[in-house]
Amino acid sequence: MQELRIGMIGYKFMGKAHSNAYRSLPMFFPETVKPEMSVICGRNEEAVRQAAHQLGWQSSSTDWKELIIREDIDLIDINAPSDAHKEIAIAAAQAGKHIFCEKPLALSLKDAREMLDAAEEAGVKHMVGFNYRFSPAVRLAKRLMDSGRLGQIYHFRAWFLQDWIIDPDFPLVWRLQKDVAGSGSHGDLGAHLIDLAHYLVGGMDEVIGMSETFVKERPLAAEMTGLSAKGSAASDAPKGRVTVDDATLFLARFENGALGSFEATRFAAGHRSTNAFEINGSLGSVKFDFERMNELEVYFNSDEEDVQGFRRVLATDPAHDYAAAWWPPGHTIGFEHTFIHEMLELSSAIAEDRQPVPNFRDGVRCQAVLEAVERSIDERRWVKISEM
Amino acid sequence: MQELRIGMIGYKFMGKAHSNAYRSLPMFFPETVKPEMSVICGRNEEAVRQAAHQLGWQSSSTDWKELIIREDIDLIDINAPSDAHKEIAIAAAQAGKHIFCEKPLALSLKDAREMLDAAEEAGVKHMVGFNYRFSPAVRLAKRLMDSGRLGQIYHFRAWFLQDWIIDPDFPLVWRLQKDVAGSGSHGDLGAHLIDLAHYLVGGMDEVIGMSETFVKERPLAAEMTGLSAKGSAASDAPKGRVTVDDATLFLARFENGALGSFEATRFAAGHRSTNAFEINGSLGSVKFDFERMNELEVYFNSDEEDVQGFRRVLATDPAHDYAAAWWPPGHTIGFEHTFIHEMLELSSAIAEDRQPVPNFRDGVRCQAVLEAVERSIDERRWVKISEM
Amino acid sequence: MQELRIGMIGYKFMGKAHSNAYRSLPMFFPETVKPEMSVICGRNEEAVRQAAHQLGWQSSSTDWKELIIREDIDLIDINAPSDAHKEIAIAAAQAGKHIFCEKPLALSLKDAREMLDAAEEAGVKHMVGFNYRFSPAVRLAKRLMDSGRLGQIYHFRAWFLQDWIIDPDFPLVWRLQKDVAGSGSHGDLGAHLIDLAHYLVGGMDEVIGMSETFVKERPLAAEMTGLSAKGSAASDAPKGRVTVDDATLFLARFENGALGSFEATRFAAGHRSTNAFEINGSLGSVKFDFERMNELEVYFNSDEEDVQGFRRVLATDPAHDYAAAWWPPGHTIGFEHTFIHEMLELSSAIAEDRQPVPNFRDGVRCQAVLEAVERSIDERRWVKISEM
Amino acid sequence: MQELRIGMIGYKFMGKAHSNAYRSLPMFFPETVKPEMSVICGRNEEAVRQAAHQLGWQSSSTDWKELIIREDIDLIDINAPSDAHKEIAIAAAQAGKHIFCEKPLALSLKDAREMLDAAEEAGVKHMVGFNYRFSPAVRLAKRLMDSGRLGQIYHFRAWFLQDWIIDPDFPLVWRLQKDVAGSGSHGDLGAHLIDLAHYLVGGMDEVIGMSETFVKERPLAAEMTGLSAKGSAASDAPKGRVTVDDATLFLARFENGALGSFEATRFAAGHRSTNAFEINGSLGSVKFDFERMNELEVYFNSDEEDVQGFRRVLATDPAHDYAAAWWPPGHTIGFEHTFIHEMLELSSAIAEDRQPVPNFRDGVRCQAVLEAVERSIDERRWVKISEM
Repeated sequence: MQELRIGMIGYKFMGKAHSNAYRSLPMFFPETVKPEMSVICGRNEEAVRQAAHQLGWQSSSTDWKELIIREDIDLIDINAPSDAHKEIAIAAAQAGKHIFCEKPLALSLKDAREMLDAAEEAGVKHMVGFNYRFSPAVRLAKRLMDSGRLGQIYHFRAWFLQDWIIDPDFPLVWRLQKDVAGSGSHGDLGAHLIDLAHYLVGGMDEVIGMSETFVKERPLAAEMTGLSAKGSAASDAPKGRVTVDDATLFLARFENGALGSFEATRFAAGHRSTNAFEINGSLGSVKFDFERMNELEVYFNSDEEDVQGFRRVLATDPAHDYAAAWWPPGHTIGFEHTFIHEMLELSSAIAEDRQPVPNFRDGVRCQAVLEAVERSIDERRWVKISEM
Repeated sequence: MQELRIGMIGYKFMGKAHSNAYRSLPMFFPETVKPEMSVICGRNEEAVRQAAHQLGWQSSSTDWKELIIREDIDLIDINAPSDAHKEIAIAAAQAGKHIFCEKPLALSLKDAREMLDAAEEAGVKHMVGFNYRFSPAVRLAKRLMDSGRLGQIYHFRAWFLQDWIIDPDFPLVWRLQKDVAGSGSHGDLGAHLIDLAHYLVGGMDEVIGMSETFVKERPLAAEMTGLSAKGSAASDAPKGRVTVDDATLFLARFENGALGSFEATRFAAGHRSTNAFEINGSLGSVKFDFERMNELEVYFNSDEEDVQGFRRVLATDPAHDYAAAWWPPGHTIGFEHTFIHEMLELSSAIAEDRQPVPNFRDGVRCQAVLEAVERSIDERRWVKISEM
Repeated sequence: MQELRIGMIGYKFMGKAHSNAYRSLPMFFPETVKPEMSVICGRNEEAVRQAAHQLGWQSSSTDWKELIIREDIDLIDINAPSDAHKEIAIAAAQAGKHIFCEKPLALSLKDAREMLDAAEEAGVKHMVGFNYRFSPAVRLAKRLMDSGRLGQIYHFRAWFLQDWIIDPDFPLVWRLQKDVAGSGSHGDLGAHLIDLAHYLVGGMDEVIGMSETFVKERPLAAEMTGLSAKGSAASDAPKGRVTVDDATLFLARFENGALGSFEATRFAAGHRSTNAFEINGSLGSVKFDFERMNELEVYFNSDEEDVQGFRRVLATDPAHDYAAAWWPPGHTIGFEHTFIHEMLELSSAIAEDRQPVPNFRDGVRCQAVLEAVERSIDERRWVKISEM
Repeated sequence: MQELRIGMIGYKFMGKAHSNAYRSLPMFFPETVKPEMSVICGRNEEAVRQAAHQLGWQSSSTDWKELIIREDIDLIDINAPSDAHKEIAIAAAQAGKHIFCEKPLALSLKDAREMLDAAEEAGVKHMVGFNYRFSPAVRLAKRLMDSGRLGQIYHFRAWFLQDWIIDPDFPLVWRLQKDVAGSGSHGDLGAHLIDLAHYLVGGMDEVIGMSETFVKERPLAAEMTGLSAKGSAASDAPKGRVTVDDATLFLARFENGALGSFEATRFAAGHRSTNAFEINGSLGSVKFDFERMNELEVYFNSDEEDVQGFRRVLATDPAHDYAAAWWPPGHTIGFEHTFIHEMLELSSAIAEDRQPVPNFRDGVRCQAVLEAVERSIDERRWVKISEM
């Protein structure tokens, strides 16, 4: 295989991040299959045409169904709003296309399972966009876990804190509407934490959660721009109901006996995007915060007794995943690089005829926990993941 | 009142901290009533005599009952193991003595309530040893809360992480035995977090928790030295059962609508004593970590938009509580100072004929949450504090 | 002008950074003139052909002179080793091409001045590659300075610390040879600090320095790959003399009365690339460290007295330069982005028919300080910049 | 020897710190000789009597000469203003008393040498108050240096930054007057850095410096209270000339080849008392900041290549000097503890009949560097320490 011909549906925040990733692969990872940025697709003809031009796509389209049946497309990249994922993914699978789908995979576990089934039945490759796995510092944490350098795991605690909707006059964008977004901070932010937990620690046995919508009504806005600058609407604008959670917390017991604590919120003043976790094992610990994504703090019990302490490891050395492809040690990378590494996995897996990781199975697994938490909130009880 | 004549029961870790506090008051807070360090009491005659000498007490005793009936004692300071608190406190109250009691107030909520009742009935002053309230940085957090500078509170998250018993060969000290200690990390560490939550945010409505004992058996040790160096016993020593929790986590909903997350563990490698919390409000946030106890991180939404960020405030300026009594700005204080400030409140309250804060009411309130969490774990359900 | 047609000489570390920048401009800053990546030039035909392919250039060449006379080239980008800068730049100017030249502009102040003269005489645009100016956090520092929010400046201290040649068996790469590199850490790292000082604080009046070469001989290496991984040669390899400084420090008095302290070294264990500075003014201070390049620490005297402290500002908000073109607040950028912003200034300036900043004047100004420091070391005395 | 009977001259900031140290020794270091706080001496009879009462001295005096000849005094503790040190110390030595003298030892190197000579001639014990040596984290740095774990030393950089006199209306206190204080930030703050350099790295060969007085005149104040809260005088108050430096920087070459950089200033906004240093060796590095005095950051080249990074070591473990005498691991100490450890060295040395460290030789050595720097500033040239 020489090229991977891509049709991408969606062209906003994630569309830009994906485009940049496809475009960057050949320069920094020249050994991989080259993505060919064939068609970009969106509903607004003028906007999508402009996006094609700016983001470097060969052509644009307003009809995703037409995209899916084209012979000259190998992969469908889905980053449209979450409520559109299922229909597109299943159609793409049935058309024999490989699929990359942004998280959350679907609005419900049932939908996610149908998507997985369709993809498996069709025998296509499928991947889900849990990009944070692809930070070099997170990979280092994974390596320390897998090699046993942290020992038996006792604790995983994680929190994804943002503050972009604290202002009660921030408008009712699509991310605050359940029918489009599925859920609020839980599905948007918590999903990443759950995936990191799965990736690093393993499966969960049971969960119990709590959630809240602090601001229950917000101004309707003519233009709803998603996760954007902290704009606020006129205070006399008509208001609509916020139908998703502003914050969701839950406790979890992992299959391996570790205890987990999770928190996702958009109401943590001062936290623009703190996506952080800590793992404590019998031999050591690691800490990560995406606001300082090049760093992993690492502690080992086995250090000499007078110099024990968390090490601030800058994951930019040749010893760290991906780093050699970038800049010399100490020269950091940013948010967008997680997508480049993600697309490297995608294209490598397709070239090597194996399933990429994370794939729809991981998406389903994440969705199961998301819904188990929601059920635990509704029913005010511990819910087994196996119930889902 | 010229002097406050003290009889202290207990002479180990807390006994030393209290002695140092009493001894330091006149030098740094000369305007307060001077504590007179009259008698120190403990079961081992030789050891307590030596403690009296080293810690600066005028005399020693092995009989706390005798202490309590002495005419020349105004205040009984109880820092004996937790299982002795109740009997001593009630006897002291009945003898008309003021009481300072270390936390946890008692081994059960019922006992704690009896102690409160006894103290109230006797009309004596009573205080409980939640010393972390007395860090200048925590006082600053309190002031920001009370003055409304953080707005409506959305989140309180707190964790008290230690690592002194990770080694499975660490012996079965009294703190790991339920009949003496009451509970493990929950009552020892979690109690402090709960008190800080009460102090800073207010009462809780309901809780649900999870706990674990990771190392279920430990070597019996001839000498059990409490929270000491990480010694380990011979691996062939006879073993006994650990009857307390190694780690306890819980979620809480506060009466004011805030969401709380709590974690106490002795299995967090690399954390010698991380007692940390964060509060997020509608106008700003604060963060605290006792390992850097002189600092409070503070964030305000109202800062100019290009210079918003958490401020690292060193609470050593004259503008901060207690700081003027100590050293010039930038010259830090340590753990023991929390006790000095605590004893300042104690002696000031007695001199002013008012109840000190925190007092047995706060001890009871903390115990109610501790037990509600335990019940929620036993019964696997949310428990209302009002049920307790 | 529709496009800026570029011929680039050099294709290694900086060649890659520049290529990535040119390639990224249209996607993230679509309003600017689009760079056309026409020809890339280097001495090794096979290597440069491969680089052209990987980095996205339309063609390659091994003859920079041919490049310079081509009609279809608007701008010459020089990132060949430092000893080649002068000849190429002057020829390019004489051929009427705009010039971007990596720092250090030249091996000597005299050469740098000739380059500036040639460019000015030819009336072309010229720019020098002080990329660190283009970090959003540095721009924020500049804005605070210029708007007077820091008041009168008292102190500027800066250090650029690396550790890649601590191993005495690290080979004698070109950067350690004076005839190719001009100088060692002083010209390589110190030059950046000097430029930041000029940018942020202004001109210097006089300087005095000190330098050292800690490891005086190193193994000759067949392949010398510059600032690369910490490889080490066989210990019995033949050795050659290191002819540049391993570390250079100097003190400076600024024209505005501020005191400056500068340190550049490649022997600071643990520092992969700490490029840091702090500025103290009468109204406030700022701190920056490139290892956390998205952050600026900011302090204001005027903050309320109980909440004074350095703020950790994440320069990823719409209020910060460049940030709106990238990702939502809290989503960081990396090292390579400084070059994208640099090339934005380059193409914008050419489109607007003005000189870019920093340009050869800034390169000359930096070189004057570099040489003044060297003279001060040779002559063991304070040297006025005006002497140079 | 059973007790060490002390006469202390001075009763303000340092008098309080010393009193607290003497008072604390028996409680925390009971194995040492017990200091007997016999007489405290000062010029203002009422004030010194009150100080005696508050600080716990048995009696007070206004005549230091009388103190010195008393039979029942073993040690004279001098913490009066710097201009009084010499006369008192020499008289004390001649009277056969052991001497503890605050830094700076004297107003001049000549005076310091006379003091040393007098003490040596009299055969008494002598110590100088470089208290920062006695931070457990600094002791750890020393241990790493001495054991060779950092290898050959390349760099020492240190800065002592304060901000208490930035306000131009801050009054002309004694610390700003050369005839009383000797020098400004140089002698007050820089002296500590120099002593730390001597302690950790060794002797210096030559130095060159730069200094400035940013605010040249200040309001005269009726009450001049030293290093106190940031009060400011009325702006129409009569003014006097500031005769000391506000900031002094210097470069140094150490005898062992290391390069040193030093900065002392009282004009660094946001720095209440940042006393920080970093050492880079061939095998590792350490960093220290007194605002976080319980921590030492430590880096080793020999760490496994994927987990190299500065470790944040909390020097509160039993493995660290002094820590076992205090609280459990993770429970921090503060500024005042450096004096307690200092007085432990003093009383231990006297009990063991050896010279304490640091003693007047260290005071002289520090003074030689201070004056060499001053000469280098006056004469605008490098000055050898051997010239002094």
